[in-house]
Amino acid sequence: MTDIPTILRAILDTVGQSADRGQVADYIPELASVDPAHFGLSVVLADGSQHSVGDAAVPFSIQSVSKVFALALALGRLGDRLWTRVGREPSGLAFNSILQLEHEKGKPRNPFINAGAIVVTDAVLAGHAPREYLGELLRFIRAAAEDDDIHINEDVARSETETGHRNFALAHFMRGHGNLQNPPELTLGAYFHQCAVEMSCDQLARAGRFLMGAPDAPRLVSPDRVRRINALMMSCGHYDGSGEFAYRVGLPGKSGVGGGILVIAPGRASIAVWSPGLNLQGNSKLGTEAVEMLARRTGWSVFG
Amino acid sequence: MTDIPTILRAILDTVGQSADRGQVADYIPELASVDPAHFGLSVVLADGSQHSVGDAAVPFSIQSVSKVFALALALGRLGDRLWTRVGREPSGLAFNSILQLEHEKGKPRNPFINAGAIVVTDAVLAGHAPREYLGELLRFIRAAAEDDDIHINEDVARSETETGHRNFALAHFMRGHGNLQNPPELTLGAYFHQCAVEMSCDQLARAGRFLMGAPDAPRLVSPDRVRRINALMMSCGHYDGSGEFAYRVGLPGKSGVGGGILVIAPGRASIAVWSPGLNLQGNSKLGTEAVEMLARRTGWSVFG
Amino acid sequence: MTDIPTILRAILDTVGQSADRGQVADYIPELASVDPAHFGLSVVLADGSQHSVGDAAVPFSIQSVSKVFALALALGRLGDRLWTRVGREPSGLAFNSILQLEHEKGKPRNPFINAGAIVVTDAVLAGHAPREYLGELLRFIRAAAEDDDIHINEDVARSETETGHRNFALAHFMRGHGNLQNPPELTLGAYFHQCAVEMSCDQLARAGRFLMGAPDAPRLVSPDRVRRINALMMSCGHYDGSGEFAYRVGLPGKSGVGGGILVIAPGRASIAVWSPGLNLQGNSKLGTEAVEMLARRTGWSVFG
Amino acid sequence: MTDIPTILRAILDTVGQSADRGQVADYIPELASVDPAHFGLSVVLADGSQHSVGDAAVPFSIQSVSKVFALALALGRLGDRLWTRVGREPSGLAFNSILQLEHEKGKPRNPFINAGAIVVTDAVLAGHAPREYLGELLRFIRAAAEDDDIHINEDVARSETETGHRNFALAHFMRGHGNLQNPPELTLGAYFHQCAVEMSCDQLARAGRFLMGAPDAPRLVSPDRVRRINALMMSCGHYDGSGEFAYRVGLPGKSGVGGGILVIAPGRASIAVWSPGLNLQGNSKLGTEAVEMLARRTGWSVFG
Repeated sequence: MTDIPTILRAILDTVGQSADRGQVADYIPELASVDPAHFGLSVVLADGSQHSVGDAAVPFSIQSVSKVFALALALGRLGDRLWTRVGREPSGLAFNSILQLEHEKGKPRNPFINAGAIVVTDAVLAGHAPREYLGELLRFIRAAAEDDDIHINEDVARSETETGHRNFALAHFMRGHGNLQNPPELTLGAYFHQCAVEMSCDQLARAGRFLMGAPDAPRLVSPDRVRRINALMMSCGHYDGSGEFAYRVGLPGKSGVGGGILVIAPGRASIAVWSPGLNLQGNSKLGTEAVEMLARRTGWSVFG
Repeated sequence: MTDIPTILRAILDTVGQSADRGQVADYIPELASVDPAHFGLSVVLADGSQHSVGDAAVPFSIQSVSKVFALALALGRLGDRLWTRVGREPSGLAFNSILQLEHEKGKPRNPFINAGAIVVTDAVLAGHAPREYLGELLRFIRAAAEDDDIHINEDVARSETETGHRNFALAHFMRGHGNLQNPPELTLGAYFHQCAVEMSCDQLARAGRFLMGAPDAPRLVSPDRVRRINALMMSCGHYDGSGEFAYRVGLPGKSGVGGGILVIAPGRASIAVWSPGLNLQGNSKLGTEAVEMLARRTGWSVFG
Repeated sequence: MTDIPTILRAILDTVGQSADRGQVADYIPELASVDPAHFGLSVVLADGSQHSVGDAAVPFSIQSVSKVFALALALGRLGDRLWTRVGREPSGLAFNSILQLEHEKGKPRNPFINAGAIVVTDAVLAGHAPREYLGELLRFIRAAAEDDDIHINEDVARSETETGHRNFALAHFMRGHGNLQNPPELTLGAYFHQCAVEMSCDQLARAGRFLMGAPDAPRLVSPDRVRRINALMMSCGHYDGSGEFAYRVGLPGKSGVGGGILVIAPGRASIAVWSPGLNLQGNSKLGTEAVEMLARRTGWSVFG
Repeated sequence: MTDIPTILRAILDTVGQSADRGQVADYIPELASVDPAHFGLSVVLADGSQHSVGDAAVPFSIQSVSKVFALALALGRLGDRLWTRVGREPSGLAFNSILQLEHEKGKPRNPFINAGAIVVTDAVLAGHAPREYLGELLRFIRAAAEDDDIHINEDVARSETETGHRNFALAHFMRGHGNLQNPPELTLGAYFHQCAVEMSCDQLARAGRFLMGAPDAPRLVSPDRVRRINALMMSCGHYDGSGEFAYRVGLPGKSGVGGGILVIAPGRASIAVWSPGLNLQGNSKLGTEAVEMLARRTGWSVFG
């Protein structure tokens, strides 16, 4: 195996020559205005060393990558009771689809599609103000990254609140089925702020260490729970592109519409990649290609 | 880690006390008449040693487990051209659903739901008589297991032909979309015989060695392809129970309606389990519980 | 043909002996508390005479029957431009289904399912306060009935606002597709009040005269539009029970979850029936049976 | 009201100037080769007089218009028992959709979509050879038209058999749910021949008299059944264009993919129109426009 820095430089070279960088999300101005030329990649190895290339120090909106941290928090708070409200199966549908909710009585398929993530946030919220929840979430992420310089972008949160009609539809629909405990505007207020957390690849890769089982990393959840969160990331982390990601990369990962992906090589590495242009399933196009190259060169696939 | 024989005996004890063994498939007499009390489990380790408990030497109908061998054969024959005709995503629907075919122009979601497996068989068939295909498939399986005493049960194949209306519907539907090259009765004739292969857990565990990367096992497909087949088994191997299997077991596997499951622990083990009673998703109930125990006790989960 | 009063008395007798009166809607307290034993029926003939039996003078919540008046108002205001925002096809799905909205880009199938009616209200609202719209709607209904004693029940409106999560989901979903011009809470505020109009069968049958082409009735819309509103009531007036109503009754009609139905026999009669118990499709059970008897005895079916 | 011959000539003039004639069905050579310039229209009035323009004497493939005659035959044979196997609701989906069959356990929505018509044919077949059924159907149609020169085009039937994969899929699917009594190839053999009946507009308009209640016409079914068949034609006669046809024309009708439509003005007229070009829902484009003009000029709409 070639050494990691060499591999990372080769990846940076390759993606730099890519003609098709995908489409930047344009539903809110804050995301639409991001320069599609950005590319960052950072890898934390089991020995604690970190290797980065490109714009790995530039913060971006982690969006749905935040669902991993929210899920860890929710499982810590509720344990397996969470699964009475949300399933563990891939949906086979788009991230914001409402179809299965109607057929399945308001219970979302998994915690990584929007409906499921809204339920997770709603579950953690219960009995707390959004401000408290967001404080706790930030503390969790900062502790995981061992970095206090991680914040929520209020402009992004506000824009999402104003344009998040589909998410309001999902929340009201689940409320109608008794699967939302708080008023939709309260839960969504928390949810939109959660999605507006900003991190760099450097920070995100460090924050992901608790899922790779690194000996020296902060131990935030039990090994058993780590395995299960990784399993969910593998099955459902890329919406209706999850099977493709498993096929091409062979590692659990969670993408966000801001172009970031957190990828875990269990026992070996925590990886964060960022490229704002998205593919048709709403996952970072070059980000996916980069981790595919990385997995192939390193042999980190969990599948042999 | 406790030694494997001890673990296997503990599992046998536990499943022996299980009150709910699930429901045996009853759509054809040959499956309905199988004694639900059967339970077999066999493990081949990387060192080549094999450990078995229960009815591991009793042959059963492998049914959809055969889709793994057919896929390996198809990829060997067609390579990536296969993916123009079948996808790589979990379907989020039952094994025999026709819904997505209508929305997605006759292209099945993945090679492990019935529609996808029929396409795979159709693709390998092209230009050959079913008899030739079945001969090749048996040679592949026998070579993988290094055991020539593996056969097709003609009674099972005949019964499936007589009652396989849903599969005929799938085949005709795909034919209408130009995604079946052979007449439906020809492809399905081959498909029903393929599903009627009979193997014991002992044989099936040995036959799965080519997917675990065992140093001494017959090398039937490239390491790259092994990884991808395992990825598909993880994403799609248990129909709309695939996410749950990944969550609970953490290993790629493929189930069959006869109650068998082939499970791969990459680099570590090839596992075959058999218990005829099924859960609601059509996967072996005790078989799943058994491999969940095995994965927990051995720490073989790929997720950490 | 027997005379109408005799027929109506026979119908009253028959429904009085009915063991199964259906289920009263229970999603808001104001509807749940209505006595299921109520039954009213009123018929206005082309000669202007009116014949009533049972509780025909008791006001009830007309609920979705109001969609007919709102549609007449919307067509008067917007003409055929309305049809860019809502279709004219039966949905084949429940009154509150959100499935087709996702497949069909937020354009509801017809103006009588909830999503379509919300769009109709939204379209009439544009540029006006809900209060103005509701005033106009009441003036229209009162003019049609030639009766000023028709009001909105504020308690019902308030209860629906508090529990109308599914309707909020529909509204937000359409807003996300750009098919709602006003904020969801504004449009739904007007919509919930519109549904809370209370009328007796006597009043409702008179209010329906503009759709039967009675010579002496107030002419509120053009004959061409009358035909089209009746056509929509035939195709779509009973949700996924519309085909059944056409088959059994053979007349255009619009039902409401309060148990009322407005039925038109073109050129012959305007009919209002009320029985609070509903069938599985959410339409008045005995109300449907009563108008089926009426149509059979009078030969008023439009189908021969 | 202008006299009928004048109206028919005006319609012929108007459609003659139409730039967009729709798309001729091309799934079998026999339909694809029909000249799209054909246009025929024939009207039989209650007084027994018949008025025709254009190619009203040219035979065409009536295709799904045959479903009306098959339904009349099935109701005569089975009565209301037929409705245990097929529903009476519009489907909201395309003529050949299989989606609802999966959700609704193999029971088609109505007798005019393909799945429902296959069940109707299957029900009449029971215990008879296809040849007998087809003989009976032809006798029924010939008696209705009082014309023995009506035949089945064997080439069309053969072509449909060869390309009817979707219909085979529907039939096998229903067979799998126990809703097909005969082997699919037998029922479909009869069905494809039934669809291959050829008639001219002159013949078809005469054959439709039994549904208009003409005093002198052959009385083939009871008045009650006439009403119900007309109701079904109104609700479901144009697939997912049924609501639009009701809205624009206001009369019950049944279309066929050969470009023919049979339209009934109860008590007034039986109308047959033919123009091979189809609209997006698979119904004759100019045929629909022609009967819309006819209904408007004559005031025959059943809706006022």
